[in-house]
Amino acid sequence: MADKSWIAVDAMGGDEGLAVMLAGVARARHRFEGMKFLLVGEESAIRDGLTKHPNLGEHAEIVHAPDVISGDEKAGAALRRAKTTSMGVAIDCVKQGRAGAAVSSGNTGALMAMAKLALRTMPGIDRPALAALLPTLGENDVVVLDLGANTEVEAKNLVQFAVMGAAYARVTMDLESPRVALLNIGSEDQKGTEEIRDAAAALRSANHLPMTFAGFVEGDRLSRGEHDVIVCDGFSGNIALKTAEGTARFVGDLLKRAFTSSVRSKIGFLISRPATQLLRDHLDPNNHNGAVFLGLNGLVLKSHGSANEIGVANAIGVAAKMVQADLARRIADDLRHFEQEKAA
Amino acid sequence: MADKSWIAVDAMGGDEGLAVMLAGVARARHRFEGMKFLLVGEESAIRDGLTKHPNLGEHAEIVHAPDVISGDEKAGAALRRAKTTSMGVAIDCVKQGRAGAAVSSGNTGALMAMAKLALRTMPGIDRPALAALLPTLGENDVVVLDLGANTEVEAKNLVQFAVMGAAYARVTMDLESPRVALLNIGSEDQKGTEEIRDAAAALRSANHLPMTFAGFVEGDRLSRGEHDVIVCDGFSGNIALKTAEGTARFVGDLLKRAFTSSVRSKIGFLISRPATQLLRDHLDPNNHNGAVFLGLNGLVLKSHGSANEIGVANAIGVAAKMVQADLARRIADDLRHFEQEKAA
Repeated sequence: MADKSWIAVDAMGGDEGLAVMLAGVARARHRFEGMKFLLVGEESAIRDGLTKHPNLGEHAEIVHAPDVISGDEKAGAALRRAKTTSMGVAIDCVKQGRAGAAVSSGNTGALMAMAKLALRTMPGIDRPALAALLPTLGENDVVVLDLGANTEVEAKNLVQFAVMGAAYARVTMDLESPRVALLNIGSEDQKGTEEIRDAAAALRSANHLPMTFAGFVEGDRLSRGEHDVIVCDGFSGNIALKTAEGTARFVGDLLKRAFTSSVRSKIGFLISRPATQLLRDHLDPNNHNGAVFLGLNGLVLKSHGSANEIGVANAIGVAAKMVQADLARRIADDLRHFEQEKAA
Repeated sequence: MADKSWIAVDAMGGDEGLAVMLAGVARARHRFEGMKFLLVGEESAIRDGLTKHPNLGEHAEIVHAPDVISGDEKAGAALRRAKTTSMGVAIDCVKQGRAGAAVSSGNTGALMAMAKLALRTMPGIDRPALAALLPTLGENDVVVLDLGANTEVEAKNLVQFAVMGAAYARVTMDLESPRVALLNIGSEDQKGTEEIRDAAAALRSANHLPMTFAGFVEGDRLSRGEHDVIVCDGFSGNIALKTAEGTARFVGDLLKRAFTSSVRSKIGFLISRPATQLLRDHLDPNNHNGAVFLGLNGLVLKSHGSANEIGVANAIGVAAKMVQADLARRIADDLRHFEQEKAA
C-alpha cells in the first residue's frame, strides 16, 4: 500500500529547472497540511536549492537520481535509462509504495512509457489515458481525456476512458453521476468514426454505471459547462486542448492590441484592469496545471513543461487531492462493476 | 465552360431562411460589380422576397426548385431528391455551365454528397476536402483543410489536400509559395499517425511544387500567422475549427462577465468600447464565412448554417473571388505538375 502522505516529485524535469520545481513544492506544502515530499534528482543540487526553502526541511526527503530525461528523448531510449533518472526513480517510489503519487514536468512520452511499464494497467484497462481539467462557463471544470497518450483507439478504449473519467470527476468535483459525452464532429447518431459510434452504443446500454451518458459533443461546446467528462482519442484530444490554449492566447493577444491601439482604449484598459486581471488568471494554463495518467496501478501526474511555480504547486495539489481521495482504487471499483454488469 | 459572371445561390438553405439569403445576395451585389446571381428555390417565395431588394432586379434570375433539403436529412436521402431541391439545382447550375460557383447555407453532408456526385473529383484527386480561412495574428488568414468532408484519410489524401490548399492560398492571398504544415500532436518526426508521417515524407521530397513545406504544426500555433495552409483529416480539422470557435466565444463570454462585474469595470468597458468592438468584428465567424469544397470539377461553397446577411455576403464574396481567379483550373494545373514530377 502506497504511503498517502508522500508525493514523489521529479525535481529535475521540465523546461524551467530545479529552482521552479522546488519553489512549486514549497508553495504546495503551505496548502496541504500533512503532505510530505520525496524530491527526486541530483542530491547535491537539490540540497543547494533547498537552502532557499527552509520551511520544506522536515517535510521533504531527497531521493538521489544522477540522470535526467531530456525533453526530446524518445520513449524507447528513456525506458532503458529509467533506473538512473529522476523521472524513473520518482515513478519507482510509487511502485515501491514509498509515495502515493509521482509528479513530473518532464517529457510526456517518456513519462507515459515509464509509468506504464513500471505500474502496469489496472485489470479491465487495455490502455491508460491522459486526463486534465479544462475551465468552463459553468460551476465546475470539465475532465477531458485522452489528451495524447493514445494516437489511435478502439471503441473499448473509449468506453474505458469514459469509466475512468467519470470516476475522476466524481472524486475531484464531488459529483454523483457525472455527465459524460464523446467528442465528435456532429451530434447525430451516424456521425464520426465507427469506434465512436460503437462506444456510444456501449455506453448507452451501461445503465448501472455512476455516470449519465449524454451522447456526442462538438468542439464548440467543450467550455459551455454542459458536461463533466469529455472522452476522445488522444490525437483529437491533444488537438482540441492545444487549439483551445492557442485560441485563448490569440484572443488575449488581440485584446492587448485593441487596448493599446489608442489613448482612449489604454485609459479604458487601466480602469477595467482589476476585472481583466481576474479573466487572465482564469485562463492562465498554470491555474489548470496537472494532467493525470488514468488506468495505472498508481498515480502519475504530468505538469506542463513550461509551468511556473504556481503551475507546479497546482499540479501537486491535484495529486494530493487524488491521493487523499484514493482515486486509483475508486477507478478500479468502477471498472469492476462495469465488467460485472457486462457479464450479467 | 462555366459562365463566370453568374453565381448560383441556394436561396432556401440555412437556419435563417430566404430573407437573410436574399439580403446577403443584395449586399454582395454592391461589392462585386458585374456579378450576377441565379437565385435557386421556390419561385413565388423568392419573387415576394425580391420586392425588398429592387437593386437586385437586373442582376438576378430566379431558377425554380420546389423542394428544400432539411438540416438533419441524411446524405443518402438528400441525393435521391437532388433534382427537385434548391441545393441540388444550384449545384446543377455549375455542372451545366450556367454559373461559375454555387453557394449554400444548407446541410453540409448533403451538399458534399450532391456536389461530389454531380461534379466528380478532378483528375489526380481521390477525395475532395472542405477548406476555409481562419483569422491569425499575422497579415493573412490561414487556409485550413479538411474541415469535415473526410472522417478518415490516407497519406495520399493529405498530400492532395496540401496541393489544393496551397493553390487556394496562392489565389486568394496572392502568395508565391505558401507555407504549408500538417496538423499533428508534436513537432518531432516520429509523432502522430502513420498517414501523417508518410504524407510529410512525400511533401518533403516534392521540391517543385509552388509551396514551402514546413513540417508539423500543433493546435496551439494555428492562429500565430506562421503558416498559410494547415492540412489535416476532416475529423481533427472539424474538432480544431469548432474548438477555436468555441474558445473564442468562451473568452468573449468571460470578458463580458469581467466587464460587468463592477461599476468600475463597466466604465472601463464603455471607454475602451471602440477598440473591443474592432476585436469583436475580427472574431465574428460571419466575417470569415465561406468554406469551399476543393478538388471537384466546379466550385461549391458552404456558408455557415446560422450565418446572418453579412456572413452570406462574405461567402458569396469568397465565391466571386475564386470564380474570377479561376481557382478550379489552377488547382488542376498544380495537380498535373505534381503528378508529372512524381512520374519523372
